[in-house]
Amino acid sequence: MVSPIDPTATGFLLAENRNMPMHVGGLQLFEKPEGAGPEYIREMYEAMRDVDEIAPLFLKHPYRSVRTAGQLVWKPDLQFDAHHHVRHSALPAPGRYRELFELCSRLHSTRLAWERPLWEAHVIEGLEDGRVALYTKTHHALVDGVSAMRLLQSVLTTDPDRRGMPAPWAAGPPRARSGGDGPSLPEIPVQALRSALALTAEAAGLPGALVRTLHKGVRNETSAVSFHAPRTIFNQSITGARRFAAEDWPIDRLRGIGKATGTTLNDVVMAMCSGAIRAYLLELDALPDTPLVAMVPVGLNAKQSHIASAEGGNAVGAVMVQLATDLADPADRLRAIHDSMQAGKEALSSMTQVQILAMSALGQAPMILAPLLRMQGIVRPPYNLIISNVPGPRTAHYWNGARLVGTYPLSIPINGMALNITCTSYDGRIAFGLTGCRRTVPHLQRLLVHLEDEVAALEKAAGVG
Amino acid sequence: MVSPIDPTATGFLLAENRNMPMHVGGLQLFEKPEGAGPEYIREMYEAMRDVDEIAPLFLKHPYRSVRTAGQLVWKPDLQFDAHHHVRHSALPAPGRYRELFELCSRLHSTRLAWERPLWEAHVIEGLEDGRVALYTKTHHALVDGVSAMRLLQSVLTTDPDRRGMPAPWAAGPPRARSGGDGPSLPEIPVQALRSALALTAEAAGLPGALVRTLHKGVRNETSAVSFHAPRTIFNQSITGARRFAAEDWPIDRLRGIGKATGTTLNDVVMAMCSGAIRAYLLELDALPDTPLVAMVPVGLNAKQSHIASAEGGNAVGAVMVQLATDLADPADRLRAIHDSMQAGKEALSSMTQVQILAMSALGQAPMILAPLLRMQGIVRPPYNLIISNVPGPRTAHYWNGARLVGTYPLSIPINGMALNITCTSYDGRIAFGLTGCRRTVPHLQRLLVHLEDEVAALEKAAGVG
Repeated sequence: MVSPIDPTATGFLLAENRNMPMHVGGLQLFEKPEGAGPEYIREMYEAMRDVDEIAPLFLKHPYRSVRTAGQLVWKPDLQFDAHHHVRHSALPAPGRYRELFELCSRLHSTRLAWERPLWEAHVIEGLEDGRVALYTKTHHALVDGVSAMRLLQSVLTTDPDRRGMPAPWAAGPPRARSGGDGPSLPEIPVQALRSALALTAEAAGLPGALVRTLHKGVRNETSAVSFHAPRTIFNQSITGARRFAAEDWPIDRLRGIGKATGTTLNDVVMAMCSGAIRAYLLELDALPDTPLVAMVPVGLNAKQSHIASAEGGNAVGAVMVQLATDLADPADRLRAIHDSMQAGKEALSSMTQVQILAMSALGQAPMILAPLLRMQGIVRPPYNLIISNVPGPRTAHYWNGARLVGTYPLSIPINGMALNITCTSYDGRIAFGLTGCRRTVPHLQRLLVHLEDEVAALEKAAGVG
Repeated sequence: MVSPIDPTATGFLLAENRNMPMHVGGLQLFEKPEGAGPEYIREMYEAMRDVDEIAPLFLKHPYRSVRTAGQLVWKPDLQFDAHHHVRHSALPAPGRYRELFELCSRLHSTRLAWERPLWEAHVIEGLEDGRVALYTKTHHALVDGVSAMRLLQSVLTTDPDRRGMPAPWAAGPPRARSGGDGPSLPEIPVQALRSALALTAEAAGLPGALVRTLHKGVRNETSAVSFHAPRTIFNQSITGARRFAAEDWPIDRLRGIGKATGTTLNDVVMAMCSGAIRAYLLELDALPDTPLVAMVPVGLNAKQSHIASAEGGNAVGAVMVQLATDLADPADRLRAIHDSMQAGKEALSSMTQVQILAMSALGQAPMILAPLLRMQGIVRPPYNLIISNVPGPRTAHYWNGARLVGTYPLSIPINGMALNITCTSYDGRIAFGLTGCRRTVPHLQRLLVHLEDEVAALEKAAGVG
C-alpha cells in the first residue's frame, strides 16, 4: 500500500542532509486551566499520545526499495508507535525560557528518521512560571511552516470551557471551528497541507521554467529595483547545530510607531530586525558597509497577483527589501525600509504571472531551490536572510481549557542562509522566532535584546511610548 | 582519512534496523558531594560536554560512498558537535524511578544516526531523591556491553576527594587507577573496546566454520546436555519500542541463600530470574509446560578453556541452563538450576577450542548471529533468553566527588529474543537490568516485583533472612 510522493516533497527529502534537516517547528505555550491538578501535564501528554486513530498524513513514511524501482514513495507505518512520536519531557532547573530554548534548539537540530512517520511532538513541563510548552516538529515534505502552525491552531477553540478536543494528528471529524469575535481559523484539509502555491507551481509543470525565472527574479533582474546583497556571516555553509530564541511584543506598541511615522506594521517589524541585526553585527565587528537585503514574503490579493491561490484567498509573493543596516539612525532606517518595501511591492505588481509564481515558490521553498541556485559559496548572495511575518488568530484560543499564551515558529536555516526570522501574531502580540546555525550565528539569543532596544529606540524617534 | 571497519563491527551495523537498534546502554546513579550548589548538575553536564579533546573512538562514524567502493568505513567527524552527543535532560514530576526508566526506555528505543559518531550521553536531573542519573548509549560496533561499563568505570576513583577527572569520551593520559581496598579497575585501551574474544574469533578467520559450529553448539548437539527450549512470548519478532526497568539487591542476601543451600551466587541469580519469569508468564497465562532455557555466559579460566583472552585473563563461554520454570517450589527450582548449570559447565569444559570460541562469540554477539541462525520464525528457539551476570567493582567509586550509588546495564533485544536480563554487581549490591521490546513483553516492570518476591521466597525456603 504505497503512494507516490509529489515532486516538491521529494525535493525536500533529497535536499536533506545532516547539516540541513528539513523540518519546521512550532513552540506553543499554554497556561493550565484553573483548578488543574498536579497530574495535569501528564494527562495532557497522555491525551495527545493516546488518540484513537492517527490521521494518514502522520502515519506515512518515505520508503525506497528495489520493488519501487528505486523511487521514493510514501508507505504507511504498520508498526506506528505513538510513544515514539509524542513525548513527555522536562526542563532542567531553574526552568527559565533559556532552558526551554536550549531544549528546543537541541530537538530542532536532530533529523527525523525516514524509517518512521516524519513528525514528533514534545509536551514539556518544568517552566518556572508553571506554563506547559509544546514543541512540534514536522518534515517540510508533509507541511510547510505556515500550514503546520495552522494545523496546530485548527484544534484550538475560543471557548475556554470546551473539552474533548483532539490532538492535531488525530484522524476524525472536521476540526473545531472557532467561535467568538476573532477571525475564523481556516479548516485544513489534512490531505493538502503543503502550501497551495507550491502545489500550483507543480501543477503548472514548471520545474525548468521556474528555475530560469528564479535566476532572474532572485537577482532582481526582472524588477525595477536592482541591488545586490553584501556578504555577511549569515551567508556561508552551515552545520547541523541549531540555536532557537523567541520573544513577543504587544502589537499596539509597534502599531503606535507605525501610526506616528506613516509606516506599516510590517515596516516596523523589518526596522526592528534591521536595527537588531545592525547592533548584533557591530558587536561582532562584522557589519558590511552596504545594507543587508532581506527576502520578505508578502501577501498580494488575487487580482493584483493575477493568480488565485487554491484557498481562494490571497496569493503570496516575495519582495527584496534593503534593510538600511548602513544607517545609524533608527528613524532613517525605518523610512528607508518603508521606501524599499513600497518599491518592491510595485515592482512585484508589474511582474508577470509566471514571475510572481516563481518568486512565490521561492518564498515557500527557499531550501529546495538553494542547491539549484548555487547559493553555496557564491560571491554575492541574492539576499542575506528571509524575514517572514505570518498573521495568526487575534483572540485567545484554548485546548481543552488550557489557554494558548504564545506561539513561536522554528524555521529551516540552509546553506548560505544561516539565520531565519519568522514572525507570527496572536492575541494582540507579535512573536519573533529566530532560528540559526549555532556555529555560524554565534550567541543568536543576543538578537532578542537588540530587538527590544530597537523597539524603544523607534518609539523614542517616533515620539511615542 | 578513512579507516577500515572490522567484520564484526560491520556485521552489527548491517544487522541494524529500526526494530533492532544495535546499541548498548548504561544507567548510572550518582549522589552529589556534600556542599554541592544548585548549579551542581549543570556544572557536571558542562564538564562532561566541554572536554578538550575527544578520544578517536568517539569521533568516528560509519561512511559508505562510491569513493569507498560501496564499502563501509570509519570516517572522522570533522564537524563533531559535543552538544549533540552530551545532553542535559530532566525528568517530569514527580521524578520517581518510574519516570527515569521511562526516559531511559525512550532514549534506548531510538537508533543512533550513522552520519554522526555512534554515542550519546544524557546527564539527567529531577530525581526526587536528589540523585544525578547518567544514561549513556554506545553502538555495539564500537564497544560491547561489558566494555562499555568498564569504560565508564575507568574514569572513576575510590578517592572521594579527587577532582579534575575526565569524561569517559575524553582523549588524554591513561585512566585513573583506582586505589583503596577494592580490586583495581581494568585500564581499557580505547582502541580495543570490543571484547577480546570477538576479535580473536575474527583473527582466527572463522566466519564460515564459526557459523557451522554455532549451528551445532547452539542446539546443544556438541554438548552432553541436550534439550530444547519451548516457544514463549519472548521468542517472536520485535518492534523498535523498548522498556527498561532495573533494581538492585544486597549481594549478602543472595549469598546467604547460596550458603544455606550449597549453591553459587550465580545459581541464586538464575533462580530469581526463573521464579520471576514463571510468575510473570503465569499472570499472562503464557507459561509453557516445559522449562525455559537461558543462555548464560560464564567465565572460564584460560587453562580450562584452552584459550587465553587477549586481556590475558579469563575467557568467556556460554552455557545453556534449564530454568525449571515448570516447578512450583522455589527450592526445587534453585536445585534444578544448580544441577543444570553444573552439567552445562562440564559439557563446556569438554568442548574443543573452536567450539568454545564459537559459543563465546555467540555470547558476545547473539544479535549479529541471529539472522544467520534464522531465529526469526523458527518453531523451536535454541534458548528463550540471555541472562548475563557481569561482576563489577566491589567498593564505592566517585567521579569528581560524586559517589556512584548504582549502575545498571541496558542491553539489546533482538528478533526472537525480546527480553534480555543483564546483572552487574557494585559496592555490595547486585543490579538486574531488564531490557525488552515494549510491545512483545508487556508490563516488563512487573518482573521487578516478582524478583523481590522470589528473593523472599528463596530466603524462606533456605531458612535464612
